[in-house]
Amino acid sequence: MNEFQLIEKYFQDLLPDNTTTTLGIGDDAALIAPKLDQELAISVDTLVENRHFYSDEKPDVIAHKALAVNLSDMAAMGAEPTGFLLALTLPKIDKAWLESFSQGLKDVAQQYKLSLLGGDTTKGPLNISITILGNVPKGQALTRKGAKAGEFVFVSGTLGAAAYQKPTPQIELGLALRGIATSCIDISDGLAQDCQHILQQSNCGACINVEALPIHPEVLQNMPEQEAQQLALTGGDDYQLLFTAPANAKTKIKELAQQLQVSITKIGEITTDNALILNLNGNRLDWNLQGWDHFL
Amino acid sequence: MNEFQLIEKYFQDLLPDNTTTTLGIGDDAALIAPKLDQELAISVDTLVENRHFYSDEKPDVIAHKALAVNLSDMAAMGAEPTGFLLALTLPKIDKAWLESFSQGLKDVAQQYKLSLLGGDTTKGPLNISITILGNVPKGQALTRKGAKAGEFVFVSGTLGAAAYQKPTPQIELGLALRGIATSCIDISDGLAQDCQHILQQSNCGACINVEALPIHPEVLQNMPEQEAQQLALTGGDDYQLLFTAPANAKTKIKELAQQLQVSITKIGEITTDNALILNLNGNRLDWNLQGWDHFL
Repeated sequence: MNEFQLIEKYFQDLLPDNTTTTLGIGDDAALIAPKLDQELAISVDTLVENRHFYSDEKPDVIAHKALAVNLSDMAAMGAEPTGFLLALTLPKIDKAWLESFSQGLKDVAQQYKLSLLGGDTTKGPLNISITILGNVPKGQALTRKGAKAGEFVFVSGTLGAAAYQKPTPQIELGLALRGIATSCIDISDGLAQDCQHILQQSNCGACINVEALPIHPEVLQNMPEQEAQQLALTGGDDYQLLFTAPANAKTKIKELAQQLQVSITKIGEITTDNALILNLNGNRLDWNLQGWDHFL
Repeated sequence: MNEFQLIEKYFQDLLPDNTTTTLGIGDDAALIAPKLDQELAISVDTLVENRHFYSDEKPDVIAHKALAVNLSDMAAMGAEPTGFLLALTLPKIDKAWLESFSQGLKDVAQQYKLSLLGGDTTKGPLNISITILGNVPKGQALTRKGAKAGEFVFVSGTLGAAAYQKPTPQIELGLALRGIATSCIDISDGLAQDCQHILQQSNCGACINVEALPIHPEVLQNMPEQEAQQLALTGGDDYQLLFTAPANAKTKIKELAQQLQVSITKIGEITTDNALILNLNGNRLDWNLQGWDHFL
């Protein structure tokens, strides 16, 4: 089987079906017709064997994860995902593996109405790099830059759950937060570290109430409370959204949480002092936290 | 050094500077403001160690190649490249390697006025995957679909040169061929194989005159003529453009070749019979050619 046969057999029916795509896979590039009132959001994430997944993990689960981590970036921008490009490096052609992997991709692509816009398959140590695209109305993207002192800090779902379940990217929530959240990020490297990105880019600080963290019940069952709290602050791959909003948006946020059936918890407030402070029942903690870092 | 410090140190000054980018690196995604009369061309290409380059190759040369192969795809679409995303998997943080690699990227990015729109760095066997974006006026992209019987087949530059020099993507030529070429592809997997892609998508055939192939002089010096011809038909990574155009466009093509100081050679004609025929001085050849295939 050569590269072209491989694409035809496993990936051809992930064809573009959304109206913005003028030309899909099978040429030197895909063509996308812009929508006048929209901006295009674009980002890339790579999964590497034995780092983001294990060799014996089921290929459809790996595919799910590869798309989910990218979808989560679109959620964090308040963007509606439309399509993706797949750069797939494979050690060999393993038909069972490819069958399962492409099925996993198709399942997620169908669920979120994503088109496969292009890709490259090449031989080498397993490496899955996906570039994702999405649309967001002009000026309405949720960036990391808009947090202001006095605003509240919220987080969706529960924390520390990545080890116990297949997390779901919060696409619907991201869309609903347009016009409400003043800054937003998805939790991929740990809440504490990802919160720092918002603080740096918004030039402010935050005080997080550790007792308010929505820790996943299984995490609480399986370790002492302080350990669970530290895991909730540092655990990666939760795909939950961490965002800020003015105090007066609290009712609106409560309503949309009910509509979307997702829990949203207020965990702290934005401050002026450019530091991330952790409080537990009013007392400042001196925990030294380090999030997931790919090169530590 | 963590991932964020790595990006800041080596890649931060590849910042977006073109007006279509609303938000560059440092958020969950980049944002691109569409231009009304343009389509967005997008494609991805991966380079793997010991496959597309050798471990001891100079990192700036690897970086050049990684961008060149992507730029060549934009050239083949008649698109003006505007920016790229870099998914870089590295076995370790080697400062000298990164210094040279990022310098190589910067050199090419400056030359073609490309913005770094985003990226992901992760740990694992060396793998460089670049997603490139470009603009092309609506409806003017050079696809693989428009070749018609009776048209001429042209190729730019010389063939087989990849082994002897750093090939240059034919961006200027691609732009100039808008409105002239009826189909276009860049030669990355060998002329014969890439020509087949045009024939399949245009639903036609071609007769290529092997004696007309513009073989690189060093290739001719270093091997027997027939071997050189076969290399010219199968050699990859030439980054030359293979395109079709009506017979009456020949004068225009000659003119733009002179303007751009690039050689363009007529090497054959499009036929109706859905096959690629190789002729040598009027005699049909029965060579069995296989281009560069990543999984052979």
